[in-house]
Amino acid sequence: MSTINFYAGPAILAKEVLEEAKQGIENFAGMGLSILEISHRSKQFVEVLDEARARVRSLLNLPTEYDVLFLTGGASSQFYMTAMNLLNENDKAGYINTGAWSTKAIKEAKLFGTIDEVASSKDKNFSYVPKGYEIDPSYRYLHFTSNNTIYGTQFKSLPTTDVRLIADMSSDIFSRPIDVRRYDIIYAGAQKNLGPSGTTLVIVKKDILNKVNRQIPSMLNYQTHIDKGSSFNTPPVYAIYVSLLSLRWLENNGGIQGLQKRNEEKAALLYNEIDRNPLFEGTAAVEDRSLMNVCFLPKNEAHTSVFIEKAAQAGCVGIGGHRSVGGFRASIYNAMPKAGVQALVDVMQEFEKENA
Amino acid sequence: MSTINFYAGPAILAKEVLEEAKQGIENFAGMGLSILEISHRSKQFVEVLDEARARVRSLLNLPTEYDVLFLTGGASSQFYMTAMNLLNENDKAGYINTGAWSTKAIKEAKLFGTIDEVASSKDKNFSYVPKGYEIDPSYRYLHFTSNNTIYGTQFKSLPTTDVRLIADMSSDIFSRPIDVRRYDIIYAGAQKNLGPSGTTLVIVKKDILNKVNRQIPSMLNYQTHIDKGSSFNTPPVYAIYVSLLSLRWLENNGGIQGLQKRNEEKAALLYNEIDRNPLFEGTAAVEDRSLMNVCFLPKNEAHTSVFIEKAAQAGCVGIGGHRSVGGFRASIYNAMPKAGVQALVDVMQEFEKENA
Repeated sequence: MSTINFYAGPAILAKEVLEEAKQGIENFAGMGLSILEISHRSKQFVEVLDEARARVRSLLNLPTEYDVLFLTGGASSQFYMTAMNLLNENDKAGYINTGAWSTKAIKEAKLFGTIDEVASSKDKNFSYVPKGYEIDPSYRYLHFTSNNTIYGTQFKSLPTTDVRLIADMSSDIFSRPIDVRRYDIIYAGAQKNLGPSGTTLVIVKKDILNKVNRQIPSMLNYQTHIDKGSSFNTPPVYAIYVSLLSLRWLENNGGIQGLQKRNEEKAALLYNEIDRNPLFEGTAAVEDRSLMNVCFLPKNEAHTSVFIEKAAQAGCVGIGGHRSVGGFRASIYNAMPKAGVQALVDVMQEFEKENA
Repeated sequence: MSTINFYAGPAILAKEVLEEAKQGIENFAGMGLSILEISHRSKQFVEVLDEARARVRSLLNLPTEYDVLFLTGGASSQFYMTAMNLLNENDKAGYINTGAWSTKAIKEAKLFGTIDEVASSKDKNFSYVPKGYEIDPSYRYLHFTSNNTIYGTQFKSLPTTDVRLIADMSSDIFSRPIDVRRYDIIYAGAQKNLGPSGTTLVIVKKDILNKVNRQIPSMLNYQTHIDKGSSFNTPPVYAIYVSLLSLRWLENNGGIQGLQKRNEEKAALLYNEIDRNPLFEGTAAVEDRSLMNVCFLPKNEAHTSVFIEKAAQAGCVGIGGHRSVGGFRASIYNAMPKAGVQALVDVMQEFEKENA
């Protein structure tokens, strides 16, 4: 029996990606050395980095005015770097609060400008995406978290505004098309839809930089990394390499369009079962349900640990819900095959029979 | 013929470390999952992180008042984080300038306080370590780079002062004993003596924190990472795991004392050949020669590319010197076996015969 990985992140990688990732440890690009011990200035790694950046460009149809960076420090570092690079002390920015990560982004941004929480779904434990709020057109930018891993909600359309957008897409990057031109910055920790932990993808519109007064340490200035092609300092070589393998896999599996279709099918399969099966119920507002993180509860609370155990026996691991929501969470990112979701649905149906 | 890795960083890892690193990609700790796709909150990874921190403690005999962090962003991030966390705007700190990395550390620290360059070896292209300078006892700290990768110099004794020390030990951590109690902070990018690129070891004396007035983003405050045991955000799981494998290997190969002895033997073997062989000469002041990065020049400049080619044919790769010094640089970090150094010495002797 194989293990099916439903963890929320670090998360499932495709079998083909892992196979190549392993070979690179032994002998990379015929160098007779492991990729873990080669110079980041070697021709072979420069090619990896160039190809990774080019593939992000082509997968997202990035216009030339955007640059692609592979940094470190996760989305947690982007929470302050975005504001630090874009806001003068008297500038205002709007933030939509859809959960724990948005809340952290707001907290860190407040060190650098005036931050308005324009909308929040905190009143219902972040189980929906706010709608119908006003956006001050003077905001330097509007920040939102496109997919909320903990609560299983996802923005299905962009906020109605002409204000420039910044989005944390850590948990749904590459899962669906993006209207890139509306964004100043898109960032994503790699460890959900892109690769292993250890690198952060940042897409930045170049002409927005160098407009704030404060002095910014070199490592925290996006311009530094643009100028040096993500190699101002030693980049996280292996995390970038595995991300490249994943980007190749994305392209070979239908690209963004193909993945979107498959992601919709996978999510429909699981949500249909949740809605049909009398033992379970979804937690997120139906119209805001995430295609990436499917959160659901047992109708009988005593079933929580029993079902997690039963799922684990069938090879489905990582389905415990986040403590702030409880119940179950199945993370079905890009790399999750439809058969993996079907296996979980099978467990749910067996569980129904046993508890009829 | 096997390839012998003399790159300056990312650098050689022990064969045993690479073998285990590869196995973790396939199936980690019997989980049926790759270490690249497991949660950083899983019991299995928490054990990795705990063991890595404990091994650093025991290898360096760290007193309890110090904490061990595994961060990201390299030494380049520590250049500003150290000053940001320790200096108020009116505080002064002293820096010893022994090369490119010290120069960068000075530049970044200047954003946060008054920085005095107390000594520099720039007058002779950083080919020696300054001595006999005055250190203002009012400095909040004195910063130095213990080993200078580019120029092949290394501090053989600590500066004579009661001022607290901060050191960038990226290229000689774990290569010799350290008098830890004299330091407030020790930091090291992993990719030379510890592991692959992607994580940075930081050893910090806990009572020095929370004494500056400025507001610091959570990710940049050492206190955050101490409070959360290096898991405030998703840590670079694999880079930390491979570093742990390396720490185990260090312990199994004589610990710091055993490595120091071996490092001294390896360096003596190579420096003796440089001094004996009429075709070569060392670049660093003899008393400051690094045990980690051995820099040397051909007496006949036309020999540079010929010798690099000849060495490569014998499997010795990565021996080209940094452009600011030229010639050759053999990086012989902890993981370099004595036989690797002997192989290079053999090439030098053959080269001598051919060019007699």
